This record gives sequence, C-alpha cells and structure tokens, in this order.
Amino acid sequence: METTTIKDIARICGVAVSTVSRAINNHPDINDETKTLIMQAIKEHNYIPNNSARNLKRSESNTIAVLIKGISNPFYNNMLKVFENDIQKKKYSFLLHRVEEHEDEIEVALGLEKEKRLKGIVFLGGYFCHSEEKLRQMKVPFILSTGGVSEKIDKNSYSFVTVDDFQESYKMVDYLCKLGHKRIATISAPPDDESIGKLRLEGYMKALEDNKIPFDQKLVRYLKDDTMDTFSMKYGYEVTKELLASTAKCTAIFAISDSMAVGTCKAIFESGKTIPKDYSVAGFDGMDISFYYHPSITTIRQPVEEMAQETIRILFDIIDGRMERERKTFHAELVIGQSTRKI
Amino acid sequence: METTTIKDIARICGVAVSTVSRAINNHPDINDETKTLIMQAIKEHNYIPNNSARNLKRSESNTIAVLIKGISNPFYNNMLKVFENDIQKKKYSFLLHRVEEHEDEIEVALGLEKEKRLKGIVFLGGYFCHSEEKLRQMKVPFILSTGGVSEKIDKNSYSFVTVDDFQESYKMVDYLCKLGHKRIATISAPPDDESIGKLRLEGYMKALEDNKIPFDQKLVRYLKDDTMDTFSMKYGYEVTKELLASTAKCTAIFAISDSMAVGTCKAIFESGKTIPKDYSVAGFDGMDISFYYHPSITTIRQPVEEMAQETIRILFDIIDGRMERERKTFHAELVIGQSTRKI
Repeated sequence: METTTIKDIARICGVAVSTVSRAINNHPDINDETKTLIMQAIKEHNYIPNNSARNLKRSESNTIAVLIKGISNPFYNNMLKVFENDIQKKKYSFLLHRVEEHEDEIEVALGLEKEKRLKGIVFLGGYFCHSEEKLRQMKVPFILSTGGVSEKIDKNSYSFVTVDDFQESYKMVDYLCKLGHKRIATISAPPDDESIGKLRLEGYMKALEDNKIPFDQKLVRYLKDDTMDTFSMKYGYEVTKELLASTAKCTAIFAISDSMAVGTCKAIFESGKTIPKDYSVAGFDGMDISFYYHPSITTIRQPVEEMAQETIRILFDIIDGRMERERKTFHAELVIGQSTRKI
Repeated sequence: METTTIKDIARICGVAVSTVSRAINNHPDINDETKTLIMQAIKEHNYIPNNSARNLKRSESNTIAVLIKGISNPFYNNMLKVFENDIQKKKYSFLLHRVEEHEDEIEVALGLEKEKRLKGIVFLGGYFCHSEEKLRQMKVPFILSTGGVSEKIDKNSYSFVTVDDFQESYKMVDYLCKLGHKRIATISAPPDDESIGKLRLEGYMKALEDNKIPFDQKLVRYLKDDTMDTFSMKYGYEVTKELLASTAKCTAIFAISDSMAVGTCKAIFESGKTIPKDYSVAGFDGMDISFYYHPSITTIRQPVEEMAQETIRILFDIIDGRMERERKTFHAELVIGQSTRKI
C-alpha cells in the first residue's frame, strides 16, 4: 500500500499544500467548508500528518516519566496502574524508567529531562539524600511518591506524597506488644535498604522500646542473598524458614510487606504449625492478598489509590502553575485480620 | 543558579561553539586533547547539551511502546517487569500505554507511532481481529504478546508469543474430569471477553465434551458488574459467593486465573467449607500466589519470564533486521497443588 502524503491530500481536494497544513493545525485562517473537505479526505485516505515540527512540539509537551526504584515491590504495581490511568486521562504519555540500586535518581532524571523533553517526573520509591543544589537543577516539576527522604534535605525544596512509614510500623508493633507478645521477630529488608525498609525497622525498634521489651538482634531477619526481590513472597518464605530453623524463639512475626507476610505464613504452615495459634503474623501495605489469604493477615493499609491519584494531581497542579509545591502525608489504617491473637 | 550554556563552555575552554558541539557529538574532526578539556568543563559546570536536532534524533531512535489491554490482570505485571528491564538494557525507553476496551489498538498504535516516533511496539493482551490491510499500515516492527488472535487473520502477517490458551485450559479441565469430578464450575470472564476469557472457556467446554460430561450453562459463572477487574481476587470472590448461594451444585471450581482462584478459595472458607475436601479449586497462570496460598492451588504455569524475554528478543531481532517475523507458542505446565483431590 502506498503511503498517502500531504501532497496527495492537496491534489485530491484541489487546494494548496499550505491549506491542508492550515486545516491540520487548526489555523484560524481557513474557511470551515474547505477544512471539513480536507479533514474528510484525510480520514478517507488514512493520511497521518507527519510534520517534524509538529511531532517535535508534541513530543515536547506530553510525557510524564515515572522513575522507580525497587520495582520488585508489588505495592508499586497498584500505584503504577493509577498513574498510568490518570496520566493518560490528561492526554499525556507515560514513560516508565527503572533506576538501578547504585544509580542516582536525580542524575537519571536530569538525563531523561533533556532527552525526552518531559513535562513532569514522579520519583516512586527509593531514598532521597541529595543536596538541595542538585534538586534545584531539575528544570521540570517533580514529586516524590512513597519513598524515604533524608532529614538533611530542606522540606521546602520538593513535593511529596507518602505515609509515615516509621509511625505506621510503630503502630503495628505496638499493637502486637499490647496483645502480649514479647518475642516479636521482624522480616526486614537487608541493612543496606535506606528507604522504607530502614524506616519500618526503626518503627519496630521504637515500639519495642516504648513497651519495655529488650531489642534482640537475632529477631531482625533478612536475607543475605541480594539477588532476591526483597519485598516478594519468596523472600518472606526463605527468611522465615531460616528463622524457624534457628534458635531464636518468637510468638509473633512482623513482615514489613504483605507479600513477605504471605511467604511467612506459608513457611509456618509447611513447618506443621498454625496461625495464629503458634505464631501471630502481621504484614504491611494493605494489599488485596492480606484480605483474601486464609487466614486473613493483619496489616497496615496504605490508601494506595488515593496516594497515587494525589501524586498525579499535585504534579499537574505544579505543571499548570496552580501552585509551587505540596507535601502530603497520608494516614494508614491498622486492619486486624485472623492472623494475630492475644497471648 | 544560572544555567550553563554551550557558549559558556566555549568561553571557558577558549574554543569555538562549533568545537564544543563536535566534542559533544563525538565528531571525528576534533583532537583528543581538546575534546578531553571540553568534556571536563562540561562535567564541572553541569552543562547538559540541549540541542533540538540532537534531542529529536534521540527521541526518534530509542522508544519502545507497550500497549496493554486488560491491565487489571496481575499476570501482566510480571511481564511488564521483564519488558521494562530488557528494554532498558538495550538503552531504549519504555512507554506504557493502556488501550481502553472500546478502542482499536491498531488505531492507537498508528497514532503513537507518528507522535512518538517509536522504534517498536508490543501489544500485550487483548484480542486481534483486524484486517491484514490495517496491520500492514503499521510502519514500525511490532509483536503480539499473550493475547488472542482471530483465525481470520493470516498468520504470516504478524509475530507473536503466546501459550495455547484453549489447549492449556483443556488440560486443566481434563485433569479435573480424570480425578472423577462431574460437576465442574468455571469462574469465567464476562461473555464479551473475546480474548483469553473466550479461549479458556472453549477449552473447558471441549474437555467436558471429550469426557462425556454434559455442559451446564449454570456452571459457567461470571459477574454482570462490568466495573470490576475481571481477573482480580475480588472478582473471583464475588462470583464464587454467588455460585455457592445458587442452586447449581458442583464439586470442583476452575477459575481462569490464579487471582480469581484465590478469591474462590476465600469465598469457600468463609462459607465454612474446606478445600479440597468440599471443593477442589484450580487456577491458571502459575503466579507466585498459587504456590504460597494455603492450600497451594493447582494451576497451569505459564513461563511468564521466558515469554516476556522472547517477546523483546524477537522485537529487537526484527528492529535490527535479523529477521522478518517469528511466532512462538510456549508450552505451559500443569502444576498440581493441594487444592484438588480425587472424588
């Protein structure tokens, strides 16, 4: 099949090429009848305008990049789904870019910003400890979503949407303490996790302290194998198998994500023990599986859809010049399932 | 902070702007010493080359779009993760675009192709029933991944990667029949699902027929509420609750995705029944949760990573001119869990 060109359309309609161009570009200087005729011919002949200037303009104006660290956490899938939906509703394109563990996300963003002529950037996950000077190099609006941010960074230099991971983790461990548990293990991220893994571990430690329960390093469990996705079911399963085989005794296990908690439950069942009779199990995130697992898993439910929607809403408010920045910390909810009990 | 321009770099290095440009663009016509000097100045002063022609060239050359129908199926998350990883390894960008149920994916692709100057397109999920003429309008290499394709379309007009959804579904239902089940319900997609939902239902029907079990429409269950994600846990849960409350009796339930099967299990547990004693439950996909659920769920494991990797490998083989097209149907595996039993 021959490709239809703008010249073909001009010939078919008996007008000049420049007239066709005016019709395509919604130029005011063309009468409605001619325009209708041209647009019909374009449609009939499957002509797709291919004008570099036009393409350049378009590619400049309608892409939002989402930079993600820790794509392995299925929690982010739920956010990506909303991002993708909301960005598309705005007639923008959605560019997904994974940032490697060793990479500096700001450097990556600065590169993409130039290359792709982005209109906005969402940083999803990860941990921010960049100098403000570096943040100020960012030319396009950006927002941090559900990651950790170093306290050294001036809170007035960026927008973000998050929950208080420290506080929410504290809430869960405090709940387990109040149920009477004194030996609470945590399925944690490896120590080099400077983001939510660290914050949730700190919440765990503070809750123990406030409940006068001595901290025992042997109850903080993680996997040394760094090839495995930290927040996965398999990770929770493997770590819990090691825990159960060890000399460290516990009555409750707090996994810092629901996926990990599912793996924890499976390891317990496989060892011939039951939940919550032998072990109470708690997770974090409020993913669907925490409700549909059997038993349902006590968790901290993050308002994931709302957080993702607000991320995009704020980003577009900045893009459209309605405001400079916004910082929003969402409240998460302790959801008590069948997996925890009084001891 | 002032932005550093190409003129600043030229002034700092005591060279002409065109020399800086040659250094940036790896032009052969510049001596190494000067080039090193310029690149150092660029680094020191945080100068980011901003040349329209250059940007245009780049945005032309390095984006792969993934068009997805049915983003609700968590099975696709696993594929997207691999796509994203493999596309990035090739130094390409990854543009994610959701196609609405009512949209024609080829139309959407033709639009994106022009707008974004893509190098390649992956169609993920959905159902293809377009005329070959339309497919031939596609200017960039493309591949269909794990969707359904109408038999009317000439198989030599496109590349694809898939499993045989009809045959694999048949395999599962045949297995349930051979266990002695005669009343097998299926948690299905709504009848307007022309893609894998339809193929898996047809496999179910054929297996019943070959096992001389009469087909009973009352055992084909789906939700009329079209606002709910078909392949989700919630969908499986709601449909199974309706099934258990109905007069249709069964001893086995085949949910056409693992997520749905998880919802099915939950509904059964909530009704006070057990698995597999009261009901055998089977899923499809081979997602992690089928192993980590308690009981583990009998399923059809699709080689999701391999399929996703092959999708990208084939696409790049076409892009790089190593071949014209390739069609690959993967073998899926019946994985017997704890959720099914002989009757």
